[in-house]
Amino acid sequence: MSPAGPVGDRTQVAIVGGGPAGLMLAHLLRLRGVDSVVLEARPRERVETRQRAGILEHGTVDALREVGADARMDELGLPHDGFELRFSGRSVRVDMQELTGQRVMIWAQTEVTKDLIALRLSQGEPLLFDAEVLEVADVETDGPSVRYRYEGAEHVLRADVVVGADGSHGPARRAIPEHLVRRFERIYPYSWLGILADVAPSSHELIYARGRTGFALASMRSPSVTRAYIQVPNGTDAQAWADEAIWDELSARFALDPGEHADRGSFTLARGPVTDKSVTPMRSVVTEPMRHGRLFLAGDAAHIVPPTGAKGLNLAVADVRVLADALGEWFSSKDETLLDAYSDTALRRVWRASHFSWTMTTMLHVDPDGDPFDEQLALAHLHHIEVSESARRALAENYRGLALGTV
Amino acid sequence: MSPAGPVGDRTQVAIVGGGPAGLMLAHLLRLRGVDSVVLEARPRERVETRQRAGILEHGTVDALREVGADARMDELGLPHDGFELRFSGRSVRVDMQELTGQRVMIWAQTEVTKDLIALRLSQGEPLLFDAEVLEVADVETDGPSVRYRYEGAEHVLRADVVVGADGSHGPARRAIPEHLVRRFERIYPYSWLGILADVAPSSHELIYARGRTGFALASMRSPSVTRAYIQVPNGTDAQAWADEAIWDELSARFALDPGEHADRGSFTLARGPVTDKSVTPMRSVVTEPMRHGRLFLAGDAAHIVPPTGAKGLNLAVADVRVLADALGEWFSSKDETLLDAYSDTALRRVWRASHFSWTMTTMLHVDPDGDPFDEQLALAHLHHIEVSESARRALAENYRGLALGTV
Repeated sequence: MSPAGPVGDRTQVAIVGGGPAGLMLAHLLRLRGVDSVVLEARPRERVETRQRAGILEHGTVDALREVGADARMDELGLPHDGFELRFSGRSVRVDMQELTGQRVMIWAQTEVTKDLIALRLSQGEPLLFDAEVLEVADVETDGPSVRYRYEGAEHVLRADVVVGADGSHGPARRAIPEHLVRRFERIYPYSWLGILADVAPSSHELIYARGRTGFALASMRSPSVTRAYIQVPNGTDAQAWADEAIWDELSARFALDPGEHADRGSFTLARGPVTDKSVTPMRSVVTEPMRHGRLFLAGDAAHIVPPTGAKGLNLAVADVRVLADALGEWFSSKDETLLDAYSDTALRRVWRASHFSWTMTTMLHVDPDGDPFDEQLALAHLHHIEVSESARRALAENYRGLALGTV
Repeated sequence: MSPAGPVGDRTQVAIVGGGPAGLMLAHLLRLRGVDSVVLEARPRERVETRQRAGILEHGTVDALREVGADARMDELGLPHDGFELRFSGRSVRVDMQELTGQRVMIWAQTEVTKDLIALRLSQGEPLLFDAEVLEVADVETDGPSVRYRYEGAEHVLRADVVVGADGSHGPARRAIPEHLVRRFERIYPYSWLGILADVAPSSHELIYARGRTGFALASMRSPSVTRAYIQVPNGTDAQAWADEAIWDELSARFALDPGEHADRGSFTLARGPVTDKSVTPMRSVVTEPMRHGRLFLAGDAAHIVPPTGAKGLNLAVADVRVLADALGEWFSSKDETLLDAYSDTALRRVWRASHFSWTMTTMLHVDPDGDPFDEQLALAHLHHIEVSESARRALAENYRGLALGTV
């Protein structure tokens, strides 16, 4: 124990974790007149360079606008009206703008994080990097606390509420007694091999493909940087794949039937220097409840989704939007209604996104443990999306994200 | 071999099987100026009393109107505008009429069959019962034939085309060489225990429920006869279930949360004398192709769906609608385009229905081999149908059936 730490010894909301969820929450709370302290275990440089998702739902874009972290996004982000699905040599465009009146924004999570950090620091609001949380305590009382280590010394931060936004391996959720926690998990029998390459994207929209040998995704980080993925077996070593072999496999999985698409039959991905190569396992985890006493969990601390639906960051932001409103209400009026509903409200969206991600994942991947019936089901589902506007609209609504309060 | 049989020794289309698919085809062909002979292995009385499905898609109703077998259906059938889903104590109505502008008809397959038989006989058109087909031959030539036994004697019927509408165990499809056939199958790990009871249905629309212990369906045969089903383990003996135990289980699975539905919280199924009790396994089978030379398969001879989506009869009728148009075109103009497309055209709908049936089945049944994640996926899917009009519309479109040419 030590005297008041570098950010004082008391705040209204102690936020464990300075990723997008924790940072966004701090900003939203500030706009609602609620003080908070953000404690992040890693160095700032690590937080700002971690490669993660890059598709922002309409509601996530709204939240960035609300907190004033939208200037660079509007300058450099790429608004997308739709995306493409490919299967059996066919191409189907899902026009989100036409089907739902809304679009998504291609803007990398690292950039979102950078902007949220810069804004926080420019406001002079408390945000500590290299601050390792050792324990979240007393969450069943009115005075929960966070014990953390900073520059070699231990400190205790007392708060009215603690929020665990510290990812899937963070310490916050350990403050919920094990016997109260239900954990749901799905390990998918494949992984993604992802590359970053210094070459302009070959398609101006994302292409999700179910190729004969598996899933592929053509995406982008910017107008000059391609991001692409292929399905690989679990346990694959990224370095075992030569760059040219990855490009060959991508091209094969995106190939169109020349009879159907004469103009694009010979589609070839533009190739360029590969600057990053990594393998991501595919899994889904949900832990319930997302609240225990004065501790609230948000983002990856409570749930993981596979990347197929690009819901991870968006779910985290949705969590803290619900939580910020609930905490704002509670601090201003002592009305606990929204706060008591937080876990259930957030989990409805979590399960919606988990189901959507599962649907996208199983529809687009070749299951090595599946049988020919499974494959035909997936192709029938894709064909339905091709021919049914209702099916396409339901997919587009899930992809661009459902408004708060509608799920 | 013998001289000309009781229906002559030659026709344009020899139809093997006098269930609804074969009978409907014969009627549709007659309207297109094409002669046919229908050979049915069972006695008329057996065909007319076999208990099967009872929900007619919009397109199936249209077909019955086209051939003039609609009078009793319009008098006694029950048009339904919607149906109800229950899960987690909640109730959701799917209003097909509002969502799609169309409805379905509750009218038992046995009644459809009776009307099609009566109409055929009243026209003096050839339809033989107790005519066991022994072999379909020469389908790779221009002169296929059907060898059958009738009243102790063997006969041969020559035709331009043979249609196998003889169910999943019929002889027709054996005329396709085994190495050309792809067979897709899914055995579901549960069955349906179904009852017929002499009591007015408790709900004026069908109720599909995912109860805590499994699926239940409340349906009807008429305003005075209840039809109901519960999910049971594979291998269940129907007689091992006491009637009262079935009613108790039905009531438990349909129970609503009184907090959500104060008016209906204590929903109890009206009980009455159980007149029939049987167990139906749940499986899905698709065989490809549906054509080989001059042999064409239709209905159960090519595909089986689990009963959850009520697609079996409707798929059979859709098959023969496509086939009747194709044969009509071919006989009148020798244009083979539609006939050559028949297998692919029919199979697109077969896979649409197989996927829909799989979706309904997995969403509404408790999988004894499933894990808690599977259960939450199913509940999330049901919740999505509750909150999303697009999801509800896509479901309603599949349920009421997609128009010919749109799938």
